[in-house]
Amino acid sequence: MQNIEVYQKSFINYLEDFATEREPVNLYEPVNYILKLGGKRLRPVLTLMTAEIFGAEAKVAMNAALSVEVFHNFSLIHDDIMDDAPLRRGQQTVHEKWDINTGILSGDAMLILAYQLFEDYEPKIFQSLAKLFSKTALEVCEGQQYDIDFETRNDVTIPEYLKMIEYKTAVLVGAAMKMGAIVAGASEEDQNLIYDFGRFLGIAFQLQDDYLDAFGNPETFGKQVGGDILENKKTYLYLKTLMLGTNEQKTRLLDLMTDHLVSEDEKVKQVKMLFNTSGASEATQLAVKDYTEKAFGVLERLNLSEGKKQVLKQFGIQLMNRRV
Amino acid sequence: MQNIEVYQKSFINYLEDFATEREPVNLYEPVNYILKLGGKRLRPVLTLMTAEIFGAEAKVAMNAALSVEVFHNFSLIHDDIMDDAPLRRGQQTVHEKWDINTGILSGDAMLILAYQLFEDYEPKIFQSLAKLFSKTALEVCEGQQYDIDFETRNDVTIPEYLKMIEYKTAVLVGAAMKMGAIVAGASEEDQNLIYDFGRFLGIAFQLQDDYLDAFGNPETFGKQVGGDILENKKTYLYLKTLMLGTNEQKTRLLDLMTDHLVSEDEKVKQVKMLFNTSGASEATQLAVKDYTEKAFGVLERLNLSEGKKQVLKQFGIQLMNRRV
Repeated sequence: MQNIEVYQKSFINYLEDFATEREPVNLYEPVNYILKLGGKRLRPVLTLMTAEIFGAEAKVAMNAALSVEVFHNFSLIHDDIMDDAPLRRGQQTVHEKWDINTGILSGDAMLILAYQLFEDYEPKIFQSLAKLFSKTALEVCEGQQYDIDFETRNDVTIPEYLKMIEYKTAVLVGAAMKMGAIVAGASEEDQNLIYDFGRFLGIAFQLQDDYLDAFGNPETFGKQVGGDILENKKTYLYLKTLMLGTNEQKTRLLDLMTDHLVSEDEKVKQVKMLFNTSGASEATQLAVKDYTEKAFGVLERLNLSEGKKQVLKQFGIQLMNRRV
Repeated sequence: MQNIEVYQKSFINYLEDFATEREPVNLYEPVNYILKLGGKRLRPVLTLMTAEIFGAEAKVAMNAALSVEVFHNFSLIHDDIMDDAPLRRGQQTVHEKWDINTGILSGDAMLILAYQLFEDYEPKIFQSLAKLFSKTALEVCEGQQYDIDFETRNDVTIPEYLKMIEYKTAVLVGAAMKMGAIVAGASEEDQNLIYDFGRFLGIAFQLQDDYLDAFGNPETFGKQVGGDILENKKTYLYLKTLMLGTNEQKTRLLDLMTDHLVSEDEKVKQVKMLFNTSGASEATQLAVKDYTEKAFGVLERLNLSEGKKQVLKQFGIQLMNRRV
């Protein structure tokens, strides 16, 4: 077992080789651009790590890991168009640097490239990877659609929200790990268990992200703290405040959403106070803990040595204790 | 062997069953909408017909045929966004009826659905279909990119134009037929020959489309006659006029492209005259004939009975004698 930095480094080397010059330049330049923007490379690292945990060499899983990363970046390009986002990791988004049409078409090409990366695996492994990939990719699209739908709905429930983040974020974490298990020839039972481990961890990760967006340290958190609040996003914190708060607190929260006179700083400050006093902050941290423990519960049923289970558990603990 | 109408009918029945209600509605409604807009269903019919020609039952090829049609419609949705087109087959385009974001996301879902349609084939057939599909889909994206690039270039050559229409249109015709051959278990040699047959026919089809766009009968041609001329599209007719015309004819054509005072009718009339007098019209009809004959030449090398070759040949003749 290697540590995360070693996986990251070997993955990035592999990525550099993939992003070579292809024609037409106007189609493939944006592909290289987004792939080289950086990021933690969390998903591909999970694929490589899981493959090793199930007894394969990490390099066998390299193309599957790259497929996951290429797909993730495809979804970022198209999501950034839909969200009209100017920046991604501090750099211009693809549709800002080029234009919307370029973003659409280069994104499409990346979705196809992601499938092509499975082609060197033998037919049964190939089919298994491609099936999992299609199911996951479709769920990610569905999650994005639910997210869009929620913007104009005022009756979003907690189970609906959880399903949305599961589809939009968590299933790809599960799939990244399951792909590692597939190429390593793990049993179907283990494949499904590691998928659930990743999926639960992915949900915990996203809930933690909701929490940190409001309560993270501005100096270490990558994004603008309070960004979700200013965008009136219906996060777990928001929905829980509407569930747990007093009538007064609920009214105040809804008023703040439409108050165009209050300053940004004041709005963030007041909404955070409501998240705290209503009990929503605590409920969110509890939910993070709950899903992390669900993940650890799955771990116990895996056919792996205690040492390997500890590696996975440590990874989960690191992820949940992150402040960025 | 059945006639084309029978294939069309059984395909449309199958399509109706595919387009059922799925959640989230806002993602899948546009998918059903575009799939039910109609059209000749040329590509899926070719898949079914080719499967039967190589000895399989057409129904075995149904999912592959549907995949080709779903992919084709995915590309229509995204192309219509890029071209800012309000109408498709006389109806509102998806991004007009809904919005651009819906068009992007529903298109993405269709690209994934197209891959999923291969999942019931056994692993080797699955891999073979998915590989061909990815290669073709990527070429279609590349063809679209070349088409976009050509809009702002003044030095497009005939070979470049032919490569563009090959990628954007013809490879999918070839792939539709090859998929029929793959599911029927045809030899690799026959698979590649039928691919070339379809590809050459696809190029001839697109060149014929260029010709009919200017010289088709307004009463039977589906689109506005002269549409390409009014859009200043660099078609085969246009490029050949710049190649074959006198200096005077070339200058006149380029002037007409930027003349904002000439009426639409007058512009179409004058450009058509230049296409004729320069010899470009004749050259285009010659190229249609040339590519059709290339296709028929490939036919001779196929391991098929004379009767079956005649079926394919008749199909090609019908396609090239079309006036719509």
